Amino acid sequence: MPADRVFDELRRLLGDRLSTAQSVREQHGRDESPLAPALPDAVAFPHSTGEVAEIVKVCAGAGVPVVPFGAGTSLEGHVLATSGGVSLDLTGMNEVVRLSVADLDVTVQAGITRNALSEVLAKEGLFFPVDPGADATIGGMAATGASGTTTVRYGTMRENVLALQVVLADGRVIETARRARKSSAGYDLTHLFVGSEGTLGVITEVTLRIHGIPEAIAGAVCRFPDIGSAVRAVTAVLQVGIPVARIEFVDELAIEAINAYAGLSYPIAPLLLLEFHGSEAGVLEQSASVGEIVTELGATDYRSAVDAQERASLWRARHDSFYASLALRPGAKAITTDVCVPISRLADCILATRADIDAHGLVATMVGHVGDGNFHVMMLVDPDDPSEMKMAEEMNQRLVARALDMDGTSTGEHGIGLHKMEFLTRELPGGVDVMRSLKRTLDPHNIMNPGKVVAFD
Amino acid sequence: MPADRVFDELRRLLGDRLSTAQSVREQHGRDESPLAPALPDAVAFPHSTGEVAEIVKVCAGAGVPVVPFGAGTSLEGHVLATSGGVSLDLTGMNEVVRLSVADLDVTVQAGITRNALSEVLAKEGLFFPVDPGADATIGGMAATGASGTTTVRYGTMRENVLALQVVLADGRVIETARRARKSSAGYDLTHLFVGSEGTLGVITEVTLRIHGIPEAIAGAVCRFPDIGSAVRAVTAVLQVGIPVARIEFVDELAIEAINAYAGLSYPIAPLLLLEFHGSEAGVLEQSASVGEIVTELGATDYRSAVDAQERASLWRARHDSFYASLALRPGAKAITTDVCVPISRLADCILATRADIDAHGLVATMVGHVGDGNFHVMMLVDPDDPSEMKMAEEMNQRLVARALDMDGTSTGEHGIGLHKMEFLTRELPGGVDVMRSLKRTLDPHNIMNPGKVVAFD
Repeated sequence: MPADRVFDELRRLLGDRLSTAQSVREQHGRDESPLAPALPDAVAFPHSTGEVAEIVKVCAGAGVPVVPFGAGTSLEGHVLATSGGVSLDLTGMNEVVRLSVADLDVTVQAGITRNALSEVLAKEGLFFPVDPGADATIGGMAATGASGTTTVRYGTMRENVLALQVVLADGRVIETARRARKSSAGYDLTHLFVGSEGTLGVITEVTLRIHGIPEAIAGAVCRFPDIGSAVRAVTAVLQVGIPVARIEFVDELAIEAINAYAGLSYPIAPLLLLEFHGSEAGVLEQSASVGEIVTELGATDYRSAVDAQERASLWRARHDSFYASLALRPGAKAITTDVCVPISRLADCILATRADIDAHGLVATMVGHVGDGNFHVMMLVDPDDPSEMKMAEEMNQRLVARALDMDGTSTGEHGIGLHKMEFLTRELPGGVDVMRSLKRTLDPHNIMNPGKVVAFD
Repeated sequence: MPADRVFDELRRLLGDRLSTAQSVREQHGRDESPLAPALPDAVAFPHSTGEVAEIVKVCAGAGVPVVPFGAGTSLEGHVLATSGGVSLDLTGMNEVVRLSVADLDVTVQAGITRNALSEVLAKEGLFFPVDPGADATIGGMAATGASGTTTVRYGTMRENVLALQVVLADGRVIETARRARKSSAGYDLTHLFVGSEGTLGVITEVTLRIHGIPEAIAGAVCRFPDIGSAVRAVTAVLQVGIPVARIEFVDELAIEAINAYAGLSYPIAPLLLLEFHGSEAGVLEQSASVGEIVTELGATDYRSAVDAQERASLWRARHDSFYASLALRPGAKAITTDVCVPISRLADCILATRADIDAHGLVATMVGHVGDGNFHVMMLVDPDDPSEMKMAEEMNQRLVARALDMDGTSTGEHGIGLHKMEFLTRELPGGVDVMRSLKRTLDPHNIMNPGKVVAFD
């Protein structure tokens, strides 16, 4: 089928759920990165896995790219339609397919957002822990290998996805695994697609591990004289095996931003924000033990926040840090970095990065999932000033090189997308050749989100 | 190179570390399954990744199969050299390459066994939780996707392998990931090789997450009037989120076997064996909470075992259950099944299986990692009685069909090997086609442990 007949065919299939309107294409041609938009030729709004399979088959027949699209909150250009084609908006597929309280698992369509899922689960006393900053779709989170503030206790999407339904590049629909909580049955197809960013197939359903809401939750906050002592305190807490649910670092400028944005008054110093999950007695004991350890290592004002409201405000502040940072410099765009290093190297990495930022006069906040060795620098740049954009990109390049030198990764949770392909080649020079072979095998005509993760040629 | 010159070439490379002696070949032509031995033509004993790569290159040039071999404790024929070729004995590569207490990770050569690793870690106050019954090699455990009694708390090999070094089928050496605790950098090559059973490449180094030995450990044991109430009690404990470290089911005949084998006197009833990890106060609280829940649901004689010696004897008994069961019927071989189902279906699955065993007059014990929905039936059969062997195999077939009907898997932890390839096709009919594509891509000449996991044609 010639490419120009593809849209007629798709329109026959979807009716007005295929759009070529400029505004709709614009909405689907950008994400939350500062990368220039790249518009798809059309946007499809399927309502079922069967429709996704039909769309992919039609596109495959004509060599037209298919770019899966969820909430559009990716940070490295994952959803930009750099080769045109069809943006596949999955937000109409947002049902909970099946929920088992006894099995602590749930199957959802890919387009449901994490907040929508959380509402459904909360009614049953359950929760899903993975919490990237944005209200992303579960399918998008699986495709990106997302994580967040609770990874130190509950893991990333990799540890929490039990099975996937995937539409392959030729329209075949497969299940990657059964619903058993563990399996050694053959190659791990689930994890092949988790983190594949839509380049190997379209994730249409996701089966997740879920958890009972803990009997008790406590928060805590403390400040440190410097970044190094904050990170050393984290290391000490993890080594004694206290099962912290969250342990987040926020630097001084980020605190200023959060205070201004949310009308709060945290002291301007490197902070650790913590959360504990367990029994009533358990969370108090955890918090007390952590308090002792971190105070020994230089923390001041260790303060438990058992009150739910105080705790919620503390974590809202942390989750708002992206938008709070943006508000530091109106009109600026945020360029967000995402390295992750072995925790023994984290203090060095953060300190060298702060020195680098300051030496170049950049405005940048830092927050970190320090329990995992992962931290973000948000550089606030004027998108219309090429020299500033260039300086920020060079800072990112140096940061990635620094992380790789420390046996770390170029991306802890944001993914490769369009922007980090060169970094991936440096990170896993032999591995990337294997990735390219996998891509060629599963998508021989390069129609699945082409130009992302690995170069085809 | 013609095949007959391969051994000359390998001998030049390895000297007397290449053996074609009958006894050595016999030792490497069998595992712990009841399958008939299949001998390799030669056994190679490499001392380095470089040597493994050279061996693979030589074999690849001549189309000679390479079968990675660790402790030989696989249960589904994984290491049988059914197409001849070279058995690659990795037990000479048994060093700890690097250990980081601060990062709670360790890199080992593939041939180190889990007990040898445990000794090294214990000196630093650390432990590695994954504990299959056998003293398997870490490389073998990674290749099989092994798990054990602590999976309910700490996960399987999938959750505990951070990165691998792999020799591919053409002799290339790759690292699958950096040492960061999480990464979204490209396709998940680590998990492609975990569970691939030597069919996609040779795992030569493994980087593992490790844990601090908990401040306190407590054990517990209780008995139930019937299997159904035991499983319901497990479900209840998991739902309230008590982080049990182990929760194991042992059936009546297995208790009899253990008592006889180890000179113990557990009551003859369905038992749950539990373990709790945490602070001194924490483990007592966990144990008390679990005691309340399970007693409410029918358990009697809930008894805490805080004393280390009593606890050790309890878990030694559980770990010995394989050999204890064998001793029930001297001269018999054990045929071990390995299904895993959603926990809501576990009681039904175990009960139907017990009825099936009894209806056919088989002698079989049952133990289960019930927190994961995984259980084993050990059928004690006379290997020289074809009708009995056939009856056992038919029992296994019915059990797998039952598990698949319940959305479970044919293997929770033992893997596919030679014996479960047909089951895999039934379990993931679309998925197995994708697995076959992956196999063809990474091992186009079918030299890596051929005839296992997926059929090549």
